[in-house]
Amino acid sequence: MKQSQLFSKTSKKISEEETSKNAHFLLRGGFIDKSSAGVYTLLPLGLKVLEKINKVIREEMNAIGGEELLLPALIQKKYWEKADRWAVDIIFKTSVCANNQNKKDFEYGLGWTHEEVITAIATKFINSYKDLPKSVYQIQTKFRAEARPQAGLLRGREFLMKDLYSFHESQEDMSKYYEKVIIAYKKIFKRLKLKALVTEAGGGAFTKEYTHEFQVLNPGGEDTIFYCPKCGFSQNHEIFEPEAHKKCSAEVKSAKAIEIGNIFKLGTKFSEAFGLSFLNKKGEKKPVVMASYGIGPTRVMATIVEEFNDKYGIIWPETIAPFAVHLIELKSKHNKKVKKAAEALYKKIKSMGVEILYDDREMSVGEKLNDADLIGIPNRIIISEKTLAAEKIEFKKRDSKKSILISEKKILDSLKKSNFLKS
Amino acid sequence: MKQSQLFSKTSKKISEEETSKNAHFLLRGGFIDKSSAGVYTLLPLGLKVLEKINKVIREEMNAIGGEELLLPALIQKKYWEKADRWAVDIIFKTSVCANNQNKKDFEYGLGWTHEEVITAIATKFINSYKDLPKSVYQIQTKFRAEARPQAGLLRGREFLMKDLYSFHESQEDMSKYYEKVIIAYKKIFKRLKLKALVTEAGGGAFTKEYTHEFQVLNPGGEDTIFYCPKCGFSQNHEIFEPEAHKKCSAEVKSAKAIEIGNIFKLGTKFSEAFGLSFLNKKGEKKPVVMASYGIGPTRVMATIVEEFNDKYGIIWPETIAPFAVHLIELKSKHNKKVKKAAEALYKKIKSMGVEILYDDREMSVGEKLNDADLIGIPNRIIISEKTLAAEKIEFKKRDSKKSILISEKKILDSLKKSNFLKS
Repeated sequence: MKQSQLFSKTSKKISEEETSKNAHFLLRGGFIDKSSAGVYTLLPLGLKVLEKINKVIREEMNAIGGEELLLPALIQKKYWEKADRWAVDIIFKTSVCANNQNKKDFEYGLGWTHEEVITAIATKFINSYKDLPKSVYQIQTKFRAEARPQAGLLRGREFLMKDLYSFHESQEDMSKYYEKVIIAYKKIFKRLKLKALVTEAGGGAFTKEYTHEFQVLNPGGEDTIFYCPKCGFSQNHEIFEPEAHKKCSAEVKSAKAIEIGNIFKLGTKFSEAFGLSFLNKKGEKKPVVMASYGIGPTRVMATIVEEFNDKYGIIWPETIAPFAVHLIELKSKHNKKVKKAAEALYKKIKSMGVEILYDDREMSVGEKLNDADLIGIPNRIIISEKTLAAEKIEFKKRDSKKSILISEKKILDSLKKSNFLKS
Repeated sequence: MKQSQLFSKTSKKISEEETSKNAHFLLRGGFIDKSSAGVYTLLPLGLKVLEKINKVIREEMNAIGGEELLLPALIQKKYWEKADRWAVDIIFKTSVCANNQNKKDFEYGLGWTHEEVITAIATKFINSYKDLPKSVYQIQTKFRAEARPQAGLLRGREFLMKDLYSFHESQEDMSKYYEKVIIAYKKIFKRLKLKALVTEAGGGAFTKEYTHEFQVLNPGGEDTIFYCPKCGFSQNHEIFEPEAHKKCSAEVKSAKAIEIGNIFKLGTKFSEAFGLSFLNKKGEKKPVVMASYGIGPTRVMATIVEEFNDKYGIIWPETIAPFAVHLIELKSKHNKKVKKAAEALYKKIKSMGVEILYDDREMSVGEKLNDADLIGIPNRIIISEKTLAAEKIEFKKRDSKKSILISEKKILDSLKKSNFLKS
């Protein structure tokens, strides 16, 4: 699209409250807008990135048999009480102000996780071993009353979450699927260019067993993990004990990390609370064994920014960049040829199905190039009087310092061969 | 997909509270689940339909220059107060229970519409006539504390909404875009097989001017409109005056109708409240002129069910059916040939990219055919001992009473030519 038509604009500075890199670059680049502490708008550029992350997640969830659905955010008190989570201090509770309405009827806890709702629904569809296993997931806005929201999209009060729930006949079957999800998660994070360590952690409000977190080593993280660079051992600092590392003799290191996914063996905690049982092959009634699996797509987006940036801005990996190509016209006064050539190339590349942002704005060379660095689209094409004179175009990767002069034909051919075509 | 693996099941009866056709069929068919009054889960089948509706809406919004974004649901009191809507009785307000937190900081009104938030954001990006016009939209969950939620997905407390906001230099420019949106809305509803009358209505909480509603004549509707079948005149009963119908001499009729879209000329109400102004060509500071445009995708889904059904179930239009083809194997005892033939055909059709549901369940002929009628997939293929003996397959349209015996080749050829291929 044409940059002059984009709803958002870049900005040179933002509130000093925002100290994290992801907030800094995403706000300045016009990817997000801050509405209040921990509450952000995804602007058009940001939503484009988020939808690409969601697409990767959906594909891998579908590949392991997950069926997508959409659960409600308004969850009645009676659901939360069944599993004893109505008093959890991060629940937002709702009320209405009108006097003529039955106030009790408007008392909901906003969904911060959905074990209760999905277990209640599952009782309607799961009765026999023939109905098992099943797995369902959603990508949905979650609400958590964080006392101190911080670090941009890393810890918010309103954020996106992919939550998958699986239902099984036995612990063994659940454990098998749990391993399958670990592999799917590794695929997702690999496609998103994030190196995630599978890390043992405590269960929090969910379970008393160890759970597993997917942690990305990054100084912007608020977690601390202990990990072995050699054997793959990794534990959250909350549960770490030195003697737990037994597989090899390498030294355990500690580092800041960002948690981008977590998985929980729930066992029968929720199925017993909600009466979710099934008849096994022998005709015996048994509680269904469950697990749940989360990924925060907005947090993943923030993590990618924390990982891929330089002092000038974001360096989006090609798989999730808002556009594949940033075409920039650098005009000097009274030269209409540059605009004409840029327009023509824009139409050509667009018609190939490549996602392209075309900077057609009337601005100085410096401003345009700074904006391009900040926004971080991986492939940059520049058209200027200089390139026209040479009958070439200037091409530069965002993560490279060098630009090259190259023929238009070569660029078009390489775009044709690449993975930039819209899926 | 295989029906045996589907998370949901059909059910023969539902709560007697649900008297609307859409709730009746969507609940029984396993498209939705009721969580509490006016709050529903979109089960996998229902989400498939909803996503197809959303896709149509997105395409037409993008075609008129709308940029998609995602605004927050948690909206601080200060936003609502600026346009004097904090006391509106359908706002859900949030609070937290923990004592050690600053309670004021957790007081939000859940978004039931988003003029406030988007206008506040626009002040950051719109400063000059060069930044205008702009239009942005989102497809987002909205929350309204309806005293009496009713009629299934027609009036809920939590529902999906597409809301588009446009920003202009002048009333004239806004009016031009407003007409463009009317045409886009007509295209959307035509693609969704709904006949919508553009109906004048009052402005409610939004504006004092007349607004326009898109009304579908249907006995399940809770609105009443007065309309002329000849000249296109249509007014909501709330504002109707007989002398308003002047264009022709035909008799005005009144009928129940469902409102599936509404559009509002907001003028400068919100831009003045939030200080959204721009410098015009003469360098004068002027308030931006706005309009907003809503469609409820979940309500559209309900309306389609109210419009397209018979006593056995839903009759989905092909454009938004959850699957294009329902393949049903009717087995008799000890005949493995039927399953084998059905499996083979399932794989063939699936590999063509056609969305197919394959009923591989071990159930009686009657149960399977009743479920197929209830779920309402437009094209049905039956494989049975009878069809195998005839070396044909049985084909039936959901909206036709007759089935025909036809060769597999002919069916595959017609699928290839059709619009069923996944987009």
